[in-house]
Amino acid sequence: MNLLKELIVINPRSDVAVYLQIENAFIQHIRQGRLSKGLKLPGSREMAGLLNVNRMTVVAAFNELEAQGWIELRSRQGTFIKSSLPLLAPKKIQKANSSFKIPEKAGFAYDEKKIVPVYPSDFPPTDKLIFNDGFPDPRISPAEQLMKTMRRLSRLPSQRKYLQYGGAQGTLFLRETLCAFLNETRGLLITPENILITRGAQMGLYIAASILLQPGDAVAVGTPGYDAANITFRQLGARIHNIPMDDDGMDINVLEALCKKKKLKAVFVIPHHHNPTTVTLVPERRIRLLELAARYRFAIIEDDYDYDFHYSSKPIMPMASLDHNGNVIYIGTLSKTITPSVRFGFMVAPAAFIRTAVSLRKSMDTQGDSIMENAIGELYKDGTMARHIKKSVNLYRERRDNLCTLLKTHLKDHVSFAVPDGGMSVWTKFLHADLSIVSEQAFKKGLIIKNGRGYDTDKVKYNSVRLGFASLNPAEQEKAVKILKEIISQL
Amino acid sequence: MNLLKELIVINPRSDVAVYLQIENAFIQHIRQGRLSKGLKLPGSREMAGLLNVNRMTVVAAFNELEAQGWIELRSRQGTFIKSSLPLLAPKKIQKANSSFKIPEKAGFAYDEKKIVPVYPSDFPPTDKLIFNDGFPDPRISPAEQLMKTMRRLSRLPSQRKYLQYGGAQGTLFLRETLCAFLNETRGLLITPENILITRGAQMGLYIAASILLQPGDAVAVGTPGYDAANITFRQLGARIHNIPMDDDGMDINVLEALCKKKKLKAVFVIPHHHNPTTVTLVPERRIRLLELAARYRFAIIEDDYDYDFHYSSKPIMPMASLDHNGNVIYIGTLSKTITPSVRFGFMVAPAAFIRTAVSLRKSMDTQGDSIMENAIGELYKDGTMARHIKKSVNLYRERRDNLCTLLKTHLKDHVSFAVPDGGMSVWTKFLHADLSIVSEQAFKKGLIIKNGRGYDTDKVKYNSVRLGFASLNPAEQEKAVKILKEIISQL
Repeated sequence: MNLLKELIVINPRSDVAVYLQIENAFIQHIRQGRLSKGLKLPGSREMAGLLNVNRMTVVAAFNELEAQGWIELRSRQGTFIKSSLPLLAPKKIQKANSSFKIPEKAGFAYDEKKIVPVYPSDFPPTDKLIFNDGFPDPRISPAEQLMKTMRRLSRLPSQRKYLQYGGAQGTLFLRETLCAFLNETRGLLITPENILITRGAQMGLYIAASILLQPGDAVAVGTPGYDAANITFRQLGARIHNIPMDDDGMDINVLEALCKKKKLKAVFVIPHHHNPTTVTLVPERRIRLLELAARYRFAIIEDDYDYDFHYSSKPIMPMASLDHNGNVIYIGTLSKTITPSVRFGFMVAPAAFIRTAVSLRKSMDTQGDSIMENAIGELYKDGTMARHIKKSVNLYRERRDNLCTLLKTHLKDHVSFAVPDGGMSVWTKFLHADLSIVSEQAFKKGLIIKNGRGYDTDKVKYNSVRLGFASLNPAEQEKAVKILKEIISQL
Repeated sequence: MNLLKELIVINPRSDVAVYLQIENAFIQHIRQGRLSKGLKLPGSREMAGLLNVNRMTVVAAFNELEAQGWIELRSRQGTFIKSSLPLLAPKKIQKANSSFKIPEKAGFAYDEKKIVPVYPSDFPPTDKLIFNDGFPDPRISPAEQLMKTMRRLSRLPSQRKYLQYGGAQGTLFLRETLCAFLNETRGLLITPENILITRGAQMGLYIAASILLQPGDAVAVGTPGYDAANITFRQLGARIHNIPMDDDGMDINVLEALCKKKKLKAVFVIPHHHNPTTVTLVPERRIRLLELAARYRFAIIEDDYDYDFHYSSKPIMPMASLDHNGNVIYIGTLSKTITPSVRFGFMVAPAAFIRTAVSLRKSMDTQGDSIMENAIGELYKDGTMARHIKKSVNLYRERRDNLCTLLKTHLKDHVSFAVPDGGMSVWTKFLHADLSIVSEQAFKKGLIIKNGRGYDTDKVKYNSVRLGFASLNPAEQEKAVKILKEIISQL
């Protein structure tokens, strides 16, 4: 059996555990026929001597190989390569044609226009500075802590049931923890039956809109408005009515006039730091909006994704916390707090509505990742998230102030903006330079900045863009603003 | 400043890091007014002496407190509790009414019947034996390895961009890795543009059906059929045509007759181990189904969720691997391999269809968890998943055989079943005993078994149930079957 010694080569410097190296080598040689079916293997002690490893290492490898069905232990005879090895190649239903490829276009009929196209997004390039739309900084994300907690939970027998199916509404533990957090931070007096855990605010919006809207139904939104919400409403066949925004938020007089003419099913509002203009809906208008909703029986979809990131004074309590008539569907996200690609959010609404929402969620997406939900619950419960929010708020406030100072210093006569009360971006109007040209030239100098066209309507060309400050540190901000200055001075 | 020594009590046996204990104590005392704004704190060295901890521990706590804005460092003066402390309570828009609760029912109008109700599911009780529908055993799940890999990736600077937005189609790395895996295991010659990563097979089904179907469109499914798929089709307003199933799968003659009468938009098939009857669609019928799809231009939604778990011989190549006309939307899941609550699946289709699917996915659910996607990609690439599948298949094959032996031994004249070629359950007909009664009595004896009503139609009462064997070890299986025996013998 010196063959084995030659075939099984162990690399002591490899990252792969030695028993796995042995196992992998065996599998490879069995598959390729070098170790034939029915072959008798030496005992673990002899094998350990041959390979110069600890006997327990060989035992571990043999156990794995046996569990996977490559080898078998015949009592009082020894260990053998299995003679009835499961075949590896799938059964072919006719001759394989290796030049065959799936055609580019489908062979069945479907209406491509049924789905509103969404601009494909990719991960940000790492070799460029980016004024993103207002995203948190992954460099301070608590993602690693979350994953550490997940790993710990996944080992606990008490958590084992959360590896199984169940809980399309989100785990009770996370919903309970969020109830406490939302009560403390937002004055929401709710119980776990009022919460559905979603994959970010976007899924909450999609579910709420799917339940509320039939094709042709009327929805009111602020303009300029949030693109992703408008796409969702269009996707569901709704008719969108644009309500102008001013410095106090949505113009409620215009909305009221619309209510008198038209049966509205829903009004979509971003009460803190409206996207894109960053204005906050003032308390008086919130009260009026609630009154209109009660009178005309429409739903307020309150997308308060930015509540936790408010810098100037205190955030304003959500309409949901005053909603005596059950008119508000309150949507929020945890992804802004954790990190964008970890998709968690919530919907708060009357319990009957939540039950319907759970049904739809289950059809769309069976359930959430329950261990991750519990891990997030732990981070909220033990104060990690509150500390992280506080830390982020302080850091982002500084970064907001720093960017505003840089804009005033270097682009004084070229841009106008209002310092936002919160959120992660400054809505910046370019006064003279054409933003499309700025965007193009900036790209050549290593800075990504949108051309702002996405916010324009038929009637208004804003020539404005959201300058995300949260994920740029002061040095990066200075570099970015100086690139803009250089471009503008040469136009 | 002996006050501090009294206020800040460190518990050396706590799980909470000492610097966090210090930090938490400070925050608590500041919030409750015991440490007042503007108060000067001792230096870190003095503080360390007072609390009898290492100076670096105090520095770590002070850094956190400063980052969060609780304390400030004034140069050449020292460290102070911040005098301009951010206020904690949110701004109230009117007097809070602590007895207020969100009403049970919504105050806005919506058609509750628009959403097909789904039976709410909860996590399995841990104090009962369960014949589930055919779920993998969480006790052998590679979830911990996945989370370990996630944690490692989350620390790598090269992975940082995956914490940010991007990649609604799934990360390129996971799609490339899956292409290789699907090519090797299923003969699918595809490129990453043919794959959309979804949250389990269910989301793939929902997306495919949403694109294909307008209300009133006709869909064919096997009967008895898969409940979750039927709910999705009904949710989207489709008309369902039930095609009988026999031992070779869907009856293609009946389907062909239907095609001649009716414009079909889609046919939904589970080619391996149909849910609930566990039959496999034979090769000849697959070829005929492909021919019909090409002729009548309908889509085949091929839900091959069980492909990796085939025991008897070789699994049969998917229709997708022979689909020269682009008629197949191939759906699969990784959740059966990893563990049910980790939601990952894929859709394979012509690239043009995938692009449309990505748009809808983005509206529904911005994107997947990218770090988790990459971690899963690693486990597929380094062979962990192939090893785990092999091990599971061997274990589940044994468990299938064991359950079938137990049924034959103890319930010989009371049940009939065919040994399934794969999957995780045995479709078992109760010949004499009423399954509803069996289910009720079993519950009292600590065994959960469905009453089978969910499979019944107006015309047929099957009195059958799927007995999931994969998540019960031999001892548990024996206990469960003996409970059934006891009940039946007393009826």
